[in-house]
Amino acid sequence: MDTSSKDFATRLAAVAGETEGVLEGLLADAALAGEIARPPRLISAMRHAALGGGKRLRPLLVVECAALFDADRAGAMLAGAALELVHCYSLVHDDLPAMDDDDLRRGRPTVHKAFDDATAILVGDALLTLAFDAMARAEVHADAAVRAALVLELARAAGIGGMAGGQMLDLAAEGRFEQKRMLSEDEIAMLQAMKTGALIRFACRAGAILGQADASALGALDKFGVAIGKAFQIADDLLDVEGDAATLGKAAGKDAAAGKATLVAVLGVQGAHARLDTLTAEADAALVPFGAKAETLRTAARFIAERRK
Amino acid sequence: MDTSSKDFATRLAAVAGETEGVLEGLLADAALAGEIARPPRLISAMRHAALGGGKRLRPLLVVECAALFDADRAGAMLAGAALELVHCYSLVHDDLPAMDDDDLRRGRPTVHKAFDDATAILVGDALLTLAFDAMARAEVHADAAVRAALVLELARAAGIGGMAGGQMLDLAAEGRFEQKRMLSEDEIAMLQAMKTGALIRFACRAGAILGQADASALGALDKFGVAIGKAFQIADDLLDVEGDAATLGKAAGKDAAAGKATLVAVLGVQGAHARLDTLTAEADAALVPFGAKAETLRTAARFIAERRK
Repeated sequence: MDTSSKDFATRLAAVAGETEGVLEGLLADAALAGEIARPPRLISAMRHAALGGGKRLRPLLVVECAALFDADRAGAMLAGAALELVHCYSLVHDDLPAMDDDDLRRGRPTVHKAFDDATAILVGDALLTLAFDAMARAEVHADAAVRAALVLELARAAGIGGMAGGQMLDLAAEGRFEQKRMLSEDEIAMLQAMKTGALIRFACRAGAILGQADASALGALDKFGVAIGKAFQIADDLLDVEGDAATLGKAAGKDAAAGKATLVAVLGVQGAHARLDTLTAEADAALVPFGAKAETLRTAARFIAERRK
Repeated sequence: MDTSSKDFATRLAAVAGETEGVLEGLLADAALAGEIARPPRLISAMRHAALGGGKRLRPLLVVECAALFDADRAGAMLAGAALELVHCYSLVHDDLPAMDDDDLRRGRPTVHKAFDDATAILVGDALLTLAFDAMARAEVHADAAVRAALVLELARAAGIGGMAGGQMLDLAAEGRFEQKRMLSEDEIAMLQAMKTGALIRFACRAGAILGQADASALGALDKFGVAIGKAFQIADDLLDVEGDAATLGKAAGKDAAAGKATLVAVLGVQGAHARLDTLTAEADAALVPFGAKAETLRTAARFIAERRK
């Protein structure tokens, strides 16, 4: 590991620890017996879904992008944790029997396995709702216009033109609703830009919004976000081919078994690695205007492309 | 029908029509082919869930409460439509086989019956997300602080200490997770304040927030919202006992069959009607400071207590 990789690992671990703390706080808040009751089983299941796992890559991106503009770190952490709640909710619903039907997530039973289907549905709903609760709080940013913009962009990234829409396209691509057909490379790219790319892109834009960046800086981080979002999904698909369940903490080889539309299937393993190199170069190019300040983000882009779990 | 009832029916019909139009717009927006694809099956299923039905009582409350302060009507309509999306999402998830397992809603097949379970899960997720998208838009109110406050309060009302938490308590009360036991009157009141009361209360508070009302006016509308929220649920439970499926557009007698915890079961039918009278009087008392301007809200309270479907 070179110096910048070591430094990056330290920073990622620090953000992961802080994210865990913020999420603990949000869920403890929600558990407080105030005027009304908070169902303990729902709280336990939300904790199972949101705590004790995850690389916390999205919060890292929010925090590091915000840091380019010297924005308040605590506010960026809370915004990052809000985004992470959206990511966590999507995993809970995605794992449901009616969706991907997964038993294992981050090396532990999925929420519907550890609890039950009804609880898992409500856990997802409650985590998504809590995300917007957290994002709208004054602690995120003193300027309400910044908070409203973050809420709006998060909703767009997570909604029908983003993650939820991408999940629907993914189910359709599996042949769930009609005859299965091969997707073109463009169609796969579109599906993935929505399903996983939108939240990663939002993470980078959120940093710029928190930093009240000008249009040119926002545009640069947007490009960076698009590039690493694509790289993230290709790396994920490569892991499904090259990885094993013990390292991944979830089942491997599922995509091929389900005949899922991935760029690895279209480009081949070698082609996919070459595409990762191109995307890393694009990500680097987008960061040029930020100079040395963007070193952690540069390493993050390599980490995403080269990750092994 | 007396004059104020006729006037109210006209106003409710007008708001229902306008809500339909705003929701049509939001869903058409979402369907527009822009940079990325919007899955047509998801859009169809969202339209099935959100359009062509519902009394639109929550939007009416937002609009009429906002009107007390001469707030912009178009902004209040959009906020009301956003709230209605949260209501619609909750029905879609509530009807799922793993939850209440209902086949009929507003006289039509439920979303998972008309489409499938996976689509219904994503429809609920996408409607909830679209609600926050709509609520954060500049068209709701020129002041971003107002929008951020609305998002925050909506998330609290819909979340673990509100609707989602109430649904969880409801499942627990059915004996889903542990041995079934009789709930006390206080426990039932708490469950209902969360499950259905919180969104109705929020509708009234939202009007005050949009009108940038002072603490005293907000407090009055809060009291009004709490009273009519309680009345709404008792009337709903009475309908399950006294109504029939043809009028309701959904199955009747389900609560008794499921041994559900309701205040009607605790107070008896006559006692429940007496409680409704008390709550209507409380609602009226809360409106005194607003004088003649609150006439529609007074009639709304009676409509809620006396509704037959």
